[in-house]
Amino acid sequence: MGEWVWDAVDTPVVVVDRVKTEGNLSAMAELAKSLGKDLVPHTKTHKSPVWARRQMELGAPRVMVAKLSEAAALLQAGIRTQYIGYPLVGAAKEYRLAELIDQGLEAMVAVDSEPGADLLARVAERTGRPLAALVEVDTGFHRCGLEGVEDVVRLARRLADGPADYAGITCFGGHINWRQPPSDLPALVDAEDAVLDRMAAALTRAGLAPRVISEGGSIPAAFGERLKTATEIRPGTYIYKDYCTMMCGAATADDCAAFVVATVVSTPAGDRAVLDAGSKTLSGDGPADGGFGYIRERPDLVLASLSEEHGVVRARNAGPTGLRIGERLTIVPNHVCTMMNLHDRFLVADNGKIVDEWPVVMRGAVR
Amino acid sequence: MGEWVWDAVDTPVVVVDRVKTEGNLSAMAELAKSLGKDLVPHTKTHKSPVWARRQMELGAPRVMVAKLSEAAALLQAGIRTQYIGYPLVGAAKEYRLAELIDQGLEAMVAVDSEPGADLLARVAERTGRPLAALVEVDTGFHRCGLEGVEDVVRLARRLADGPADYAGITCFGGHINWRQPPSDLPALVDAEDAVLDRMAAALTRAGLAPRVISEGGSIPAAFGERLKTATEIRPGTYIYKDYCTMMCGAATADDCAAFVVATVVSTPAGDRAVLDAGSKTLSGDGPADGGFGYIRERPDLVLASLSEEHGVVRARNAGPTGLRIGERLTIVPNHVCTMMNLHDRFLVADNGKIVDEWPVVMRGAVR
Repeated sequence: MGEWVWDAVDTPVVVVDRVKTEGNLSAMAELAKSLGKDLVPHTKTHKSPVWARRQMELGAPRVMVAKLSEAAALLQAGIRTQYIGYPLVGAAKEYRLAELIDQGLEAMVAVDSEPGADLLARVAERTGRPLAALVEVDTGFHRCGLEGVEDVVRLARRLADGPADYAGITCFGGHINWRQPPSDLPALVDAEDAVLDRMAAALTRAGLAPRVISEGGSIPAAFGERLKTATEIRPGTYIYKDYCTMMCGAATADDCAAFVVATVVSTPAGDRAVLDAGSKTLSGDGPADGGFGYIRERPDLVLASLSEEHGVVRARNAGPTGLRIGERLTIVPNHVCTMMNLHDRFLVADNGKIVDEWPVVMRGAVR
Repeated sequence: MGEWVWDAVDTPVVVVDRVKTEGNLSAMAELAKSLGKDLVPHTKTHKSPVWARRQMELGAPRVMVAKLSEAAALLQAGIRTQYIGYPLVGAAKEYRLAELIDQGLEAMVAVDSEPGADLLARVAERTGRPLAALVEVDTGFHRCGLEGVEDVVRLARRLADGPADYAGITCFGGHINWRQPPSDLPALVDAEDAVLDRMAAALTRAGLAPRVISEGGSIPAAFGERLKTATEIRPGTYIYKDYCTMMCGAATADDCAAFVVATVVSTPAGDRAVLDAGSKTLSGDGPADGGFGYIRERPDLVLASLSEEHGVVRARNAGPTGLRIGERLTIVPNHVCTMMNLHDRFLVADNGKIVDEWPVVMRGAVR
C-alpha cells in the first residue's frame, strides 16, 4: 500500500483494492460451500455488475437486488437469475417486472402481504411464467416480514394455491449488527435460527415445506455455522467489509477493501483538523465507535463529526491531532454500501498501484 | 396539489414545486435588498445551474460553491462570478483552479491557513490575476476558520502583502441550527454578529478594513436584520427549505418546495408501515423531531427509522398507523441538500402538474 499512490490522486476519492476484494469474495464462497448453503450475495454493496458476475463464477446461484432498476442493470449485464428481496407494490413495478421477465429475468421474489401476492399473480398471468416466491418472516428486525406463524402459513398457502411458485421463506437479520456488544451476536444468530426453524416446522406441518430458507445479513453470515435452518445466506457487505463489520469482529482493518483517500484541508486549532471527506463522500451513517469512519493510518484519531464536505478529526485523548495541511489519510467508511452509493466512479488498486477506474453502475437506483 | 399527479409516478421520486421555489427565491432576494446586503446563494442545495442563473437574475452578484467540480459545472453554464467557500489544498486543486480562471472564472475564495494563502499566491502568479480572498473566521461552529483575532489579522496581512486581492472575512454559522431551541436562535445570531464586528474592528485598526464581510447559513439569513456587520449573506437551503428549516421557525410546511413521493410497501403490523423511501432516497440526516422527514399528509405519523431502501413509519401516539399498502405519501426531507445529492434527476411540478424532469447537474461533485 505505497503512500506515493495516494499522493498522486485528487481527493476525496474512493479506492477499491482488487486483491483484498477477491480474497473476501473467495472466503465467503468457501464458507458457504463448507456449510452446504447457497450463497446469494446482495449486490447493493458494490452496485457493480462486474462483481456480481464474479460472485456467480464463484458459485452463487443468483444474486440479490432490492429495486427493479438494479435488476434491469444486472440483466443487461447478462445476469438472469436474481433474488428481488423487496416488496413490489404498484402498477409501475408490476409492468416493469413483467417486462424484465419477458426479457429473460428469472426472478425469485420476497412477499409479505396479500396485495404483494396479488401483484405476483398478475405478473405470472401476464408473462405466463410463475414467479418463485418466498414469504418474508420477521426474525427480530421489525422492518418488513410477518411475525405470526399463522400469518406466514396463510400467505404461503395463498402463494401455493395461486399462480406463484411458492418456494419457502426469507428474512433479514438487520438487528444483528454493530450496535450490539460483539459477545451478544452468537445468541442473536441462534435466536434468529430458532424463529426460522419454528416457521419451517409449522409450514411443513401444513403441507407447505419450504425448499428455500433464505437468511440475509453479513453479520449473521459471518456466524454461518450457527444458521442451521437456512438453506442459503445473503450477505452483501462481505465483499468490501467496513468499520461496522470490524466492530462486530467479522473483519480486521486489513480485510477492508474499499476506502476513501482524503486530504487534511484545515487545522484551525491544534486539537482539530478538517478532512475533505464529509457525509457527501462517506455517507452520514453513524456514529459508530464515536466516529464516522476508521482512519487507517491513525487509529488514535476519530472522525468526530461530518458536514457535507468536511470531516472534523480529533484525537481520542483530546490532545493535539498532529495532522498537517496537505497530509493524506485513508478512511474505511462506517457503512460501505451507503458510501458507494454516493460515487459515480471509483479507482481500482492492485498491490498499491491504481490500475483502473470503474463506474458504480447501479448507483442511485432507488426505483 | 392534486393527489392524482403523485398516483401516476413510479416511486420513490423527488418532486420540486416550481411556483413555491420561485416564491422562496424572490422572498430571500427581497429580504437581502431590504437589508442592503449582497445575497450570495450557496448552490449546494439545488446543484442546478438553471437555478443558479435564476438566483443571479434576482440580484446575486455571485453564487457559492464548495468544490471546483461544482465551479466548473457552473462556469460551463455561463456563470463566471463565484465564491469558492472551501479550503483549497494540493496540487490538483491548484492546477484546476488556475485552469478555471484561464477559462474565465472570476472567483472569490475562502482561506484559513498559510498553505492556503501560498496556493492562492501560486495561482495568481500562474494566471496573472490576483484572486479576491476572504479570511475564514470561526464564529462558533468550530469547523474551519480561525478563532483568534491575532491569527485573523496575521493571515489578512499575509494576503494583502502577497499577490492576492485581500477582500475581507467570511464565516459559516452552522451551529445556528435546528438542534437549538428556536427561542435561542436570535441570541446565537447576535453572538455571531459580535464576533464579526470584533474581527472587522481589529482588521480596520490594523489598516486592513474588510470590504466584504460574508456570513453563511440559511438560518442566520432568516434572522438577517440581526446581522448588522455582514455585507453579504450566503443562505443555501432557502430555495427549497426543509424540515430542519421548519423546526427553526424559518419555514412552514407549505413553503417547502422539494419533497419525495413515497409508497407504502408493507404493513406487517398495525403499528408499523414501511415506505419505499429510505436513506438512499432521503439521506440519513437526522433524526430531527424524532424522525427522518416530515410526512405532509399525516403529521401524526413519524418516519421513525431508515434503512437504505426502507422507511419505517409509526404513529406518534404509538397507535395504529392506519396506512394501507399502495398508499402514497409525500415527505419533506430533514435536509434537502443531502437528499438532492442522492438523485440523478427530479420531477418539476407546476400547480400540481408534472411539467418537466431536470438533471441534478452538480450531484456527487465531491472534488
